[in-house]
Amino acid sequence: MRVLTAVALTVLVFWPTVGLPAAPARTMADVLAAAKADDWRELDPNNTLYLEFAAGRVVIELSPDFAPRHVDNIRILVRAHFFDGLAINRVQDNYVVQWGDADGRRSVGTAKKTLPGEFTRPAAGLPLVVLPDPDTYAPQTGFVRGFPAARDSATGTAWAVHCYGVVGVGRDNAADSGGGTELYVVSGHAPRHLDRNITVVGRVVAGMELLAALPRGSAAMGFYEKPEQRVPISRIRVAADVPEAERSKLQLLRTDTPTFMDLIESRRNRREEWFKVPAGRIEVCNVPLPVRTKPEPKKQE
Amino acid sequence: MRVLTAVALTVLVFWPTVGLPAAPARTMADVLAAAKADDWRELDPNNTLYLEFAAGRVVIELSPDFAPRHVDNIRILVRAHFFDGLAINRVQDNYVVQWGDADGRRSVGTAKKTLPGEFTRPAAGLPLVVLPDPDTYAPQTGFVRGFPAARDSATGTAWAVHCYGVVGVGRDNAADSGGGTELYVVSGHAPRHLDRNITVVGRVVAGMELLAALPRGSAAMGFYEKPEQRVPISRIRVAADVPEAERSKLQLLRTDTPTFMDLIESRRNRREEWFKVPAGRIEVCNVPLPVRTKPEPKKQE
Repeated sequence: MRVLTAVALTVLVFWPTVGLPAAPARTMADVLAAAKADDWRELDPNNTLYLEFAAGRVVIELSPDFAPRHVDNIRILVRAHFFDGLAINRVQDNYVVQWGDADGRRSVGTAKKTLPGEFTRPAAGLPLVVLPDPDTYAPQTGFVRGFPAARDSATGTAWAVHCYGVVGVGRDNAADSGGGTELYVVSGHAPRHLDRNITVVGRVVAGMELLAALPRGSAAMGFYEKPEQRVPISRIRVAADVPEAERSKLQLLRTDTPTFMDLIESRRNRREEWFKVPAGRIEVCNVPLPVRTKPEPKKQE
Repeated sequence: MRVLTAVALTVLVFWPTVGLPAAPARTMADVLAAAKADDWRELDPNNTLYLEFAAGRVVIELSPDFAPRHVDNIRILVRAHFFDGLAINRVQDNYVVQWGDADGRRSVGTAKKTLPGEFTRPAAGLPLVVLPDPDTYAPQTGFVRGFPAARDSATGTAWAVHCYGVVGVGRDNAADSGGGTELYVVSGHAPRHLDRNITVVGRVVAGMELLAALPRGSAAMGFYEKPEQRVPISRIRVAADVPEAERSKLQLLRTDTPTFMDLIESRRNRREEWFKVPAGRIEVCNVPLPVRTKPEPKKQE
């Protein structure tokens, strides 16, 4: 795992204030076209879930960096078929889509029903690639192995931030009342007030548009009023348990590379002809995290 | 129109840094329950559009403060039935929903086909209620008569910001290539890099969930691939042209009131039992802008 040095970050920090970047101005398309094969990574099938429902497959990358106990527990639930035949029961516009055991009736088997919250973690040991621009909610923001994150040096803590597509663990009022039997994904403008208040366990890397287009629930907080409005989940599986031929062949751009730094700069100052005034800044939840289908190996001619 | 004084804003700015607020801690529900009748306003029917399609009615408040020429032009287009029978032709996940004359074939009649961009305006004369927290993209953010906005004192300019539900005017690469024949609404995380690059003409105040739940387009930029996938628009009307009995009876919380200041504070530091760590900050696009159905007059018993 390469981690950007302080020197590289300083260059990024000072580019926009001292004038034009040293490198030629490039669009994100330019940056991605120039990316090397090893700028891309594959998902760890043990840290990947497939949620399958009538509309298709949603691919979720789990984040053991931020919630190791919850990730373990969710893996146990998934492997015990806990979610199979349950449903999406809440779709609140500009907020979240939520699924799982809404009625709390299903046995968790050998998993834990609840766990202490994993809302923050020590910042030490976590390689945060830091964004250069101010954030409303956190002293520092950036990316940890593909996940949007924040850090507060004063308290020595770090946490995953609630951007579009981020998956968390529903809970009741008590901090230790969630365990993974109900999960939600952010489907609107980043609700950053949830940061440090709830456990983040992952991020949707494909299929988010299938969840985001579901009809909104009309009861309070976007719950579906009638049980028959709920959207059934066929099953959730750990990718490692799926035959290789049936796995989603995805690659994600690594966030700990110079290519990703170039991508950030290409989005802070848009070079496409359409843009008239570059923002000169970027907020963590506006940084694209590119995903592509794994290229086929080139045929020998 | 009441405008908050500098004194009132200073109190808001310094509350969170000197300790607990002087007023009792209240949730947004508390604040709204205590709102007075004149904390609410009604829409100006001349500045209100109804977009009607199979799923229902979308209510848009126009923003002549920010784009007077485009607002006038769109009103002319609407009154000439320009949009009736056209379609929603682009739904890009976590970005925008767009409608209008995608093929540029319909006559604009007495309206202008294109206008110079109204991307920013002079800050002078615009009553901005300023938020106390830092923003990634702008020196100051806040609200102008119900619209999220930003200001840069260094340049003396102000502009409407792209939050969820904000409506803008599609254009080609040239700054003066839009006129209102194609409109979009932000349907995902605030794309703030669009600020100062495009003309904002309004904001959806009801029915946003109907647009946000449309199936995503699978062509580039979320366009529907086939014409038959487009979602027909029955008609768009200016509310003033709709018989009073058929108008949406809505009221919006005024943003130039002490009640709205209280609402902001209730969201910066959430007091609901569920929250364990109040954010202590709020970003402009996370401030709720309450809309309610106009209460029925109380009957005389």
